[in-house]
Amino acid sequence: MGNEKQFVQEITPKSQDFSEWYVDVVRKAELADYTTIKGCMVIKPYGFALWENIRDALDKRIKATGHQNAYFPLFVPESLLKKEAAHVEGFAPEVAWVTHGGNEPLEERLAIRPTSEAIICSIYAKWVQSYRDLPILINQWANVVRWEKVTRLFLRTTEFLWQEGHTCHRTMDEAQEETLKMLRVYQEFAETELAMPVIPGQKTDNEKFPGALYTYTIEAMMGDGKALQAGTSHNLGQHFSKMFEIMFEDEDHVRKYVWQTSWGVSTRLVGGVIMTHGDDHGLILPPRIAPTQVIVVPIFQAATREAVVAKAGELKEHLAKICRCEIDARDQYTPGWKFNEYELRGVPVRLELGPKDLAKEQCVLVRRDTREKIFCPLTELENRIPALLEQIQKDMLARARAYREENTRTVANYDEFRQVMEEKRGFIFAPWCGNGECELKVKEDTKATIRCLPLDNENRVIEAREGVCVRCGAPAKYNVYFARAY
Amino acid sequence: MGNEKQFVQEITPKSQDFSEWYVDVVRKAELADYTTIKGCMVIKPYGFALWENIRDALDKRIKATGHQNAYFPLFVPESLLKKEAAHVEGFAPEVAWVTHGGNEPLEERLAIRPTSEAIICSIYAKWVQSYRDLPILINQWANVVRWEKVTRLFLRTTEFLWQEGHTCHRTMDEAQEETLKMLRVYQEFAETELAMPVIPGQKTDNEKFPGALYTYTIEAMMGDGKALQAGTSHNLGQHFSKMFEIMFEDEDHVRKYVWQTSWGVSTRLVGGVIMTHGDDHGLILPPRIAPTQVIVVPIFQAATREAVVAKAGELKEHLAKICRCEIDARDQYTPGWKFNEYELRGVPVRLELGPKDLAKEQCVLVRRDTREKIFCPLTELENRIPALLEQIQKDMLARARAYREENTRTVANYDEFRQVMEEKRGFIFAPWCGNGECELKVKEDTKATIRCLPLDNENRVIEAREGVCVRCGAPAKYNVYFARAY
Repeated sequence: MGNEKQFVQEITPKSQDFSEWYVDVVRKAELADYTTIKGCMVIKPYGFALWENIRDALDKRIKATGHQNAYFPLFVPESLLKKEAAHVEGFAPEVAWVTHGGNEPLEERLAIRPTSEAIICSIYAKWVQSYRDLPILINQWANVVRWEKVTRLFLRTTEFLWQEGHTCHRTMDEAQEETLKMLRVYQEFAETELAMPVIPGQKTDNEKFPGALYTYTIEAMMGDGKALQAGTSHNLGQHFSKMFEIMFEDEDHVRKYVWQTSWGVSTRLVGGVIMTHGDDHGLILPPRIAPTQVIVVPIFQAATREAVVAKAGELKEHLAKICRCEIDARDQYTPGWKFNEYELRGVPVRLELGPKDLAKEQCVLVRRDTREKIFCPLTELENRIPALLEQIQKDMLARARAYREENTRTVANYDEFRQVMEEKRGFIFAPWCGNGECELKVKEDTKATIRCLPLDNENRVIEAREGVCVRCGAPAKYNVYFARAY
Repeated sequence: MGNEKQFVQEITPKSQDFSEWYVDVVRKAELADYTTIKGCMVIKPYGFALWENIRDALDKRIKATGHQNAYFPLFVPESLLKKEAAHVEGFAPEVAWVTHGGNEPLEERLAIRPTSEAIICSIYAKWVQSYRDLPILINQWANVVRWEKVTRLFLRTTEFLWQEGHTCHRTMDEAQEETLKMLRVYQEFAETELAMPVIPGQKTDNEKFPGALYTYTIEAMMGDGKALQAGTSHNLGQHFSKMFEIMFEDEDHVRKYVWQTSWGVSTRLVGGVIMTHGDDHGLILPPRIAPTQVIVVPIFQAATREAVVAKAGELKEHLAKICRCEIDARDQYTPGWKFNEYELRGVPVRLELGPKDLAKEQCVLVRRDTREKIFCPLTELENRIPALLEQIQKDMLARARAYREENTRTVANYDEFRQVMEEKRGFIFAPWCGNGECELKVKEDTKATIRCLPLDNENRVIEAREGVCVRCGAPAKYNVYFARAY
């Protein structure tokens, strides 16, 4: 097993340097890599297959809630981007500008969409005439570009892939309902598909989307105790409709501005999955989104090769009908090498079949998440595999939730706050006065930001009934989550 | 039925002005529309649902032939684009250039990919080391930008969506096999899914892809007799691998350049579907890719509304399990209006249910392609609908094929050639000497180009055994298809 040692040593241990561990896993599991273009990554086939599964699982939910996909232009003329003041201020510093088409300079610079509110609003202004045209419930899957100074594979790249929903409604209530509906869709999706527990909540004014009235977020905790904003849903109010004149004639014959929402998640989720579940051996992928759910590894010597590989191939064919199953029967790699390889790649279940197993008509199933070994009669495989995949999915969510609970703390005072944030990280659930300056001071002192004001089951922000602001001592308005974040 | 007349009049008749008819259909069926950004379109939900079905049907085939999806950067640094001489010459005049990121000018201009050979080759150069790394069989679905002077919805737009396969092989033979395999995948896909018959063939040197060794194409005939290049597959030889130094150490320990292919189809196929099948009433969509395959239209008065709508809803629920079925039970539109609307949108089958039908436990099925009415007992629907959809798909392909045959002509001499091309258009199948200058002269005289040198069943270009070049009278080398093209 000399191979094994050598292999595992290539990944920096998670406990030693989380950030190095992350890059090692992304690159060695062949999810993605950097390119010569600053901040741009190439998503490799294995990483893209993972993204396709994530995308398809979310796309189903977006369609099931009455939305349709469409596709809008990549370019946003500068004049459009500038229409909404807060929006341009937020995005202009990170826009890539097209100035020439062919050999001709353009009359007006074109931004490559950093997000599509401006271009889509300019188009919606033509589509919406009457209350009968509402609501507009459209989503697009697209690439966007933000000229980031510091980039990290999947988490923050110059170009990334995402979906962005853009809707128009007749009333503020409808827009608010849509905003929260999609927030809950994201939450259910993250927890069900990615096994990633999230806290749904509202962003503070300092943290909200440039141009939004309210921004809601789902916040996840990563393996190093830092927060990841995993998706956002914005009630845009009438900020954009007024600037872009998206108006409709209502039933009462009065012309009114529409109420809008937008919401998105991105390839950043892939980073979230890695950092939620991975360990020192590499990726651990939730079965529901794993490109390969079961990897069959036949174990043989020259004399037993034929029989073992034949049976393993048969099992693979059989299992491929009920799950995403592959086989690795290559001669040039040892079983030990393969075990490491598929652990690194996070395949949820390994099925080992050797000559002794064959004689006993059984095989060994090895869970990636717990590394537990289970002997399984071949006749029971068809029932055991789907149940095992479901169990792993469930256990992964429970484990991530337990980790988050363990690393969510309350503190007695600001000194303790600073100490916890410095030494332990994680989330701190603490009372806050509601003052933005207090929030910024905490950030300055500790690098922690308010991740969100959590919501109750009726989607209301939970107000504090007692206690004082963890920083300033004034009466608390909310209990909020603080954390350092990606 | 006052509505009907008014409605149909809005579409320019196909025979009167094909080009206006096309734009009318695209816009009124709500497939797509122009935007304020020159040459860029917005693909509306109905058009995008059609594209999603096309994409998914092709994606399956691409994966089934051993390819994996990945995603490469949108940007191509100018120095990379310039590496392959013919390539840059072909694409530089139509490139959109990014010159600024945020507020800073860039050190090197970035092209927005007009196609991705250059960026992908620069990445493959790092991935390929040994013959064991080959073949590389990767595809990406992406947006690309070409700064076109004259644009048409779906057919030629500044930004469009496509897939581009990029593969690396150990030998020329393997690359050639791959090139032709994908050409045949495109052919089978176009004929099976789009009911669009195509002629697979090789492009002349004048028409080949900038940087390719050989370009193969599938050519379709549109409803106005013009040709549409519906997909291309290129054997790139070692043109790019030599410039980008994509080398591998072969089994014989010699370092060699890889052999490459690339192949793509785009949203242009949507235009092809419209122009192959549509009529004066609007779109006619092949059932396999139609977003809605069956539209249920209940026909009722106030007194019969409840019973008819209830039964129609029941039928819809039932049929939705075996096909893409929708119902339009809106009160504010007449049945006549709805008939026109779904004919315009090309829904393959309309299911009408009125009170009399209800009494007889039957319904009326109306085929969009032939407008034939079929009375069908409700108990037989489940069997009849899938068979009918299959029949329509088959008939549409046969009809398009017959139309192409009727409009493919041979000519006795060049005068007749010019006359046919001026008056009747269509394809002219004629002998050609193989000289590129002759080809260009024909184009100058008649606007017709050589669409392709057709292939036999073994994928060999069919050489002429007799006859003389239709233009110059020299001995013919090939029999080729001439046509005016989109």
